[in-house]
Amino acid sequence: MRIVTRGDYIESLRRMKKRVFIMGQEIENLTDHPLVRPSLDACGMTYELAQKPEHADLMLATSNLTGQKVNRFTHLHQNAGDLVSKVKMQRLLGQTTGCCFQRCVGMDAFNAVDSVTYEMDQKLGTEYHARFRNYLRHVQEENLVVDGAMTDPKGDRQLKPSQQVDPDLFMHMVDRKSDGIVVRGAKLHQTGALNSHEIIVMPTLTLSEDDRDYAVSFAVPVDAPGVLMVYGRQPSDTRKLEGGRLDVGNVEFGGHEAVIILENVFVPWERVFMAGEYAFSGLLVERFAGYHRQSYGGCKTGVGDVLIGAAQLAAQYQGTDKASHIKDKIVEMIHLNETMYACGIACSAEGKPTGSGTYLIDLLLANVCKLNVTRFPYEIARLAQDIAGGLLVTLPSEKDLAHPEVGRYLKKYLHSVDRYSTEDRCQILRLMENLTLGPGAAAYLTESMHGAGSPQAQRIMLARLANLEKKMGLARRLAGIQERPSK
Amino acid sequence: MRIVTRGDYIESLRRMKKRVFIMGQEIENLTDHPLVRPSLDACGMTYELAQKPEHADLMLATSNLTGQKVNRFTHLHQNAGDLVSKVKMQRLLGQTTGCCFQRCVGMDAFNAVDSVTYEMDQKLGTEYHARFRNYLRHVQEENLVVDGAMTDPKGDRQLKPSQQVDPDLFMHMVDRKSDGIVVRGAKLHQTGALNSHEIIVMPTLTLSEDDRDYAVSFAVPVDAPGVLMVYGRQPSDTRKLEGGRLDVGNVEFGGHEAVIILENVFVPWERVFMAGEYAFSGLLVERFAGYHRQSYGGCKTGVGDVLIGAAQLAAQYQGTDKASHIKDKIVEMIHLNETMYACGIACSAEGKPTGSGTYLIDLLLANVCKLNVTRFPYEIARLAQDIAGGLLVTLPSEKDLAHPEVGRYLKKYLHSVDRYSTEDRCQILRLMENLTLGPGAAAYLTESMHGAGSPQAQRIMLARLANLEKKMGLARRLAGIQERPSK
Amino acid sequence: MRIVTRGDYIESLRRMKKRVFIMGQEIENLTDHPLVRPSLDACGMTYELAQKPEHADLMLATSNLTGQKVNRFTHLHQNAGDLVSKVKMQRLLGQTTGCCFQRCVGMDAFNAVDSVTYEMDQKLGTEYHARFRNYLRHVQEENLVVDGAMTDPKGDRQLKPSQQVDPDLFMHMVDRKSDGIVVRGAKLHQTGALNSHEIIVMPTLTLSEDDRDYAVSFAVPVDAPGVLMVYGRQPSDTRKLEGGRLDVGNVEFGGHEAVIILENVFVPWERVFMAGEYAFSGLLVERFAGYHRQSYGGCKTGVGDVLIGAAQLAAQYQGTDKASHIKDKIVEMIHLNETMYACGIACSAEGKPTGSGTYLIDLLLANVCKLNVTRFPYEIARLAQDIAGGLLVTLPSEKDLAHPEVGRYLKKYLHSVDRYSTEDRCQILRLMENLTLGPGAAAYLTESMHGAGSPQAQRIMLARLANLEKKMGLARRLAGIQERPSK
Amino acid sequence: MRIVTRGDYIESLRRMKKRVFIMGQEIENLTDHPLVRPSLDACGMTYELAQKPEHADLMLATSNLTGQKVNRFTHLHQNAGDLVSKVKMQRLLGQTTGCCFQRCVGMDAFNAVDSVTYEMDQKLGTEYHARFRNYLRHVQEENLVVDGAMTDPKGDRQLKPSQQVDPDLFMHMVDRKSDGIVVRGAKLHQTGALNSHEIIVMPTLTLSEDDRDYAVSFAVPVDAPGVLMVYGRQPSDTRKLEGGRLDVGNVEFGGHEAVIILENVFVPWERVFMAGEYAFSGLLVERFAGYHRQSYGGCKTGVGDVLIGAAQLAAQYQGTDKASHIKDKIVEMIHLNETMYACGIACSAEGKPTGSGTYLIDLLLANVCKLNVTRFPYEIARLAQDIAGGLLVTLPSEKDLAHPEVGRYLKKYLHSVDRYSTEDRCQILRLMENLTLGPGAAAYLTESMHGAGSPQAQRIMLARLANLEKKMGLARRLAGIQERPSK
Repeated sequence: MRIVTRGDYIESLRRMKKRVFIMGQEIENLTDHPLVRPSLDACGMTYELAQKPEHADLMLATSNLTGQKVNRFTHLHQNAGDLVSKVKMQRLLGQTTGCCFQRCVGMDAFNAVDSVTYEMDQKLGTEYHARFRNYLRHVQEENLVVDGAMTDPKGDRQLKPSQQVDPDLFMHMVDRKSDGIVVRGAKLHQTGALNSHEIIVMPTLTLSEDDRDYAVSFAVPVDAPGVLMVYGRQPSDTRKLEGGRLDVGNVEFGGHEAVIILENVFVPWERVFMAGEYAFSGLLVERFAGYHRQSYGGCKTGVGDVLIGAAQLAAQYQGTDKASHIKDKIVEMIHLNETMYACGIACSAEGKPTGSGTYLIDLLLANVCKLNVTRFPYEIARLAQDIAGGLLVTLPSEKDLAHPEVGRYLKKYLHSVDRYSTEDRCQILRLMENLTLGPGAAAYLTESMHGAGSPQAQRIMLARLANLEKKMGLARRLAGIQERPSK
Repeated sequence: MRIVTRGDYIESLRRMKKRVFIMGQEIENLTDHPLVRPSLDACGMTYELAQKPEHADLMLATSNLTGQKVNRFTHLHQNAGDLVSKVKMQRLLGQTTGCCFQRCVGMDAFNAVDSVTYEMDQKLGTEYHARFRNYLRHVQEENLVVDGAMTDPKGDRQLKPSQQVDPDLFMHMVDRKSDGIVVRGAKLHQTGALNSHEIIVMPTLTLSEDDRDYAVSFAVPVDAPGVLMVYGRQPSDTRKLEGGRLDVGNVEFGGHEAVIILENVFVPWERVFMAGEYAFSGLLVERFAGYHRQSYGGCKTGVGDVLIGAAQLAAQYQGTDKASHIKDKIVEMIHLNETMYACGIACSAEGKPTGSGTYLIDLLLANVCKLNVTRFPYEIARLAQDIAGGLLVTLPSEKDLAHPEVGRYLKKYLHSVDRYSTEDRCQILRLMENLTLGPGAAAYLTESMHGAGSPQAQRIMLARLANLEKKMGLARRLAGIQERPSK
Repeated sequence: MRIVTRGDYIESLRRMKKRVFIMGQEIENLTDHPLVRPSLDACGMTYELAQKPEHADLMLATSNLTGQKVNRFTHLHQNAGDLVSKVKMQRLLGQTTGCCFQRCVGMDAFNAVDSVTYEMDQKLGTEYHARFRNYLRHVQEENLVVDGAMTDPKGDRQLKPSQQVDPDLFMHMVDRKSDGIVVRGAKLHQTGALNSHEIIVMPTLTLSEDDRDYAVSFAVPVDAPGVLMVYGRQPSDTRKLEGGRLDVGNVEFGGHEAVIILENVFVPWERVFMAGEYAFSGLLVERFAGYHRQSYGGCKTGVGDVLIGAAQLAAQYQGTDKASHIKDKIVEMIHLNETMYACGIACSAEGKPTGSGTYLIDLLLANVCKLNVTRFPYEIARLAQDIAGGLLVTLPSEKDLAHPEVGRYLKKYLHSVDRYSTEDRCQILRLMENLTLGPGAAAYLTESMHGAGSPQAQRIMLARLANLEKKMGLARRLAGIQERPSK
Repeated sequence: MRIVTRGDYIESLRRMKKRVFIMGQEIENLTDHPLVRPSLDACGMTYELAQKPEHADLMLATSNLTGQKVNRFTHLHQNAGDLVSKVKMQRLLGQTTGCCFQRCVGMDAFNAVDSVTYEMDQKLGTEYHARFRNYLRHVQEENLVVDGAMTDPKGDRQLKPSQQVDPDLFMHMVDRKSDGIVVRGAKLHQTGALNSHEIIVMPTLTLSEDDRDYAVSFAVPVDAPGVLMVYGRQPSDTRKLEGGRLDVGNVEFGGHEAVIILENVFVPWERVFMAGEYAFSGLLVERFAGYHRQSYGGCKTGVGDVLIGAAQLAAQYQGTDKASHIKDKIVEMIHLNETMYACGIACSAEGKPTGSGTYLIDLLLANVCKLNVTRFPYEIARLAQDIAGGLLVTLPSEKDLAHPEVGRYLKKYLHSVDRYSTEDRCQILRLMENLTLGPGAAAYLTESMHGAGSPQAQRIMLARLANLEKKMGLARRLAGIQERPSK
């Protein structure tokens, strides 16, 4: 039954029998768990906004597979306009949730797997592409949330998969059967995994022949036998268990990350999209990472908008918004935020079709985008803390503010500009704490650093894509140097 | 007679009778003057590249006025693709010349004046737009270089035009006649003015009713009676007079800036595009500045490509290109350069039509673009100097290298990696000196700072365009704050 | 009874009857409260290290008041060497505790009040200095921890104290009696207040005659009638209540901040050090802030050492420590950390005596020191997160790692370089989380921003202290400009 | 005859018969050559200021060799106060000359050679230290300027000295005789070499046994047979030949760099301080570089003072000095400048005695100092250009300003705030051009990058000196990790 509303989505998850562990306990009723529900609601906004006419252009697209309107998160980009719309949709959702809404990894996986399976089939005569498109048709029709899972544990970073002491430190096929494959391994840092219907697995790095069994891509439901998931802690996560409203900062939304363990999971062939074609592993990594590096130019700028707005409110509430240095810091935050966005737009607008017809971003600019995202949110957060003042980390708890004796004093002494309420001031500061030092910071900062690859991964791509030879030729010509065998 | 080739262009200028002063002397044969010729050749490349089939897409466009193919530097942008092509054309020319090729100011002026005169006419019932388009048709047909002249001397920055001790410190109408107007004033920092056929003058800031006579826009030939021009010095400019090749760094191209003085110059009405409509002065400034801020995302990244290529060559010539810190610095230069480019592309791809049909860039992103350009070239130049080594500023002169006694020693001791020649090494270092401390640096650094407005001008625009109210609303909603009359 | 050991110190606090609220509850047994005890232990290290012979030079000093060896935290600096030793002691304690050890504010208050009361008495004939030295003799003899309390709530930042809607938003005298004064108000952001024996209050800004009653400085015990304290929340603070060891990151130490409320507290005259002498309020603020800005060059570099060490360990544990980009990031962290330290040392070495004989740091350099501290820890933390990898914010809880079923998988999949244990890897990551996103970050980042005054406060001091006139004279001379009445 | 005054100094040089080439010509009357004289005058200020009573404390010191007052530039530092005074003296001279005054390299060489020869003799039983002290006594008594020459051409940076195609690419002994040695090679980037009486040569890197003959240190007069020097070009250097005053920017002072060639120069044993003791080459490099890295915390901050003063004047002259963003940029320039100074002071105040009694700076902090100097002057220069405005690179020449027709217009249109003269405005802008894009920038920027070693050299030292093991221990302890053989 096709999922339409946020409610449908939550109910669809409630029906699944996943095995999930949170803080040492296996959880039965995951959808109502207070540590998870805010992230479920955030992901749910990808459904809710899709129903709003004013956002239909961004949230929906016409499927090239079915001709139907589908949620853009399940769509294969058909032109550069689609790529641009993707970024704008992500900014909208970042603005709406103030956190990671988790559904991008699936979308980025679909688009990467689509063109790579096409090219693989062209080259090798395999049949992965048709399979994949069948699978995606199902995803579009059901309107599923799919976790695009790339990052393996990796063990000792100096060793290749097959060199590790434990062969499972990278996901691999442990058996090939007539009807499918059996896989074992884990995926770390899986954003929103607990809120997904399915997982689409991809290899995590360029593989050589020795590591052939690690070249594996497939889809499984999250409640397939052998799948376990473990919730990853975030700063101040348990404030969500305290029952209040103020101290959580973001009153409705949040994100989460999880470890996914696949213990001898069986995958039927119709859901297998790579099984040993190691020569295409690097391409798949590069494409998925490329799309996902583009994504950060959208979602994080949306969250940046929230933080900028919060900083401006904090300044107003405290009577500092007219100070020239505060105005200047707000402008700087805007500038950095829009620079990231510009990179997201640029790599999209410069997108080109791949063989399968699916559009690929300009990879050089997508890497530039992400590399900026590993820097600017940190500076934006620093400026936000500058504007917020020290109260960000010295504010007493919601319960103190509500206490009959001491609460009276706190409200008296935390009162600032007279026409604003003390409660509002405290709530904005808690939102800023969330985004710069709390669970929001896990997504806005650390995930900006490492999501879609750590900065060094982007630098390596820049070195590869920048065409230094051409630049050297330009310099030689202007310096009047012959392109001779020198000397 | 329509100008086609670089040669045509130079001959067309030779026929003009401009009054030009260089280092205290009035110059007769300007086109062959060694201080000017490299800039003429740089501007000439806007013709030469337009003849190359491989660059036709970027260099030519189909005029909406005549239906003919015209040089893009004279074109009104008809869609976002035109705006993107503009940036790519500028990068190409920056790569080709390694300096400022000077023709963008005219293009940016045309596009700004076009939409503003249209909107002015709509609002006020004036007839400027038709006049302007007639004028532009002439420019397109003749394929002219036009200096877009905005920056007034401004005198005391704290005073408005009419408050200045000397009323001429901003360009103004001193007489209105039946057949035209008489203007007086000056324009500073006029890039490539000596190489222009015409000047199109615009006001330099938002004007109020008191300054009505300063709200003036018009076109005049550079050899109109009353027009004087004075060459502005650049670092190491006179190396061009020394007769050698090495010490100039850029062996073929260069740029220049000039002061233009208009002493009671008569302008017939058909060349007047604003004459007192002060309420539209700010709009014209904003649009011209916006287009020109976009431009910097193209031209300076082209020059950046040259500098990056030169740095890589220097490293190879010296045997340091394999060092990880050198590779990392090259990547950083690429990253910064492409970030500027991404901003140029993004503001273009997000362009929207104005009332006249001419496309306008996204102004917020264009300002973001330029603000990055006031920073990153400086860091790129710093990194280039890091890679170059101290020889950049301690290398003896070309004449020493050629000296029979001492030249032998210099060639011996400046020899580095054996398969590269010492001469090539020196030439690359001189190119890098040119771009980071020489005449090229005037354009690559200082002009990047102040061209199209100093950074504070961009910051003011960011504050105006960023929609802080919306961002505050986003934050309020996530913090659960009612948009109530607080307290 | 003189406090000697960490145990003595804790017992001395246990005997006090403070009124303290934590998360909505009044706390009886404060010294054993798990949210407070780590901070108590951190402060306790100021006693424990003082007993170690190898640290005696830094931790002890010979009192100019008694000739006895005293804990340096109670000492008046008698020479530049004392100022340098102070910074080194702070670095040692930052290294030892990895957090804020809280006792500096008192030391900085003593030194500021000492010289200001001396100068006040000289000018006004008052007797504050002798009173203060009597008080300090008591502090030295008992070896007390004293909270130096400056920051008022401040209400609307655009209004002076007496202009606020509520006159209590700045601490003020509400009565003057024959035997003392009565004060009302609050102090925010009071580092380590719950661990103090006494509070020494100072005004928070330069006051004018209208605000005479706000010019008040005095000392009170924290258990004086009318004193209330409220614990300020920190990120992830309640992990300390979970009973484990891993998830807290710093297994032994922590910090805290509190709101102190003084509701009509009586202070006898012998403990009053300013009572209306508003003309000296600015000087007291400037001196206290100056000393405290120096402090940050010590303590935060000590914490920085811990974070750098943790990053290097994390890299070793993960097998990335040999990568050139990792080594380069470690070097950058060191460089930034030592730059802050250098500023702390420099302002100390350049210290000069005040009228009372107590040495004052070079104020310009102390402000430079602190301004760097508002920037560099953020960049160090960003680099640390870069090195740590995403696991920093996706690691499951200690309880998951200990779970019989899922813990086995987690230990398997989080295993990295074979010769290091998974537990150690996780513990180092949790320490890094603590310092960059947890309670440690409240101190290492946000307190670095706002402690001893927000960055704008330092900028204002730089503008005031930098002697621009002299610099202009230098430039004029080299440009050959006469210092004439121009024109 | 002991040199006392600036005049004595210039006369002493006039008497020498050096072989010097400038722009392809051998120069007879070097001391009056307009390209050299400004640097001679700058170096001459090390004599002139030493005669001023108000500067005696900084400029003079009591020699430990003779007990006489000597110029500090010839002094061996006897305590940390001497090291601090050195930095202050350098800042004073930077402020006075606005350029490189060139005499530090000798001072830094003396101090490095002194302690290294002492330790060499202790270890190897050689007699270099007494020889060196005899030599230095002569330098002190005559008050000579000595060029400390370290940087070899280095050829291919991947090869060791003896691996180079040309063995002369590093300075080496080509003969050992009974009465002395014969050396061949060159030294590049020799600051102020043309103004020196003597050269003291040191090896340029750590050498191994294969390169024994390259481990050579000695002193020779600059007019010894076989010594040739070639002037290195600087940006805009030939403006000094134009005869005016405005366009040179710095009207009195300048710097220069030169290539020194030693073609089979004989050095008698009493002037040889190392001859094959390769094991001490690294130590000598490290010490000289350390002292010289300290130096940059003095001289460049002095030049920074000039540039800050010039920027403030430019702002006043143009009426922008009241703008908050301008004030903020001035503060930022001050902050960066004082941070470098603080590092210079700190590494000095933390100086410790070496075996010979000569004090050595704290090497870690000296490297931190220099690494900041490779960054901050570039940012200060960028901010200065921001404040200056575009006129910095578009101002017509002095001759245009003096031209009867066009000069009148230029003076009219370049007039700004009424009470300041246009000439003064132009002169300040030319000084700023000099320092950010002209010959001053060669010293203020590029030399700040590469002098005393390029940034990577400092980074390597930081990695070596930072005691990472200790930091790892701190982190382990706080994370509760046993320093066990892990696993």
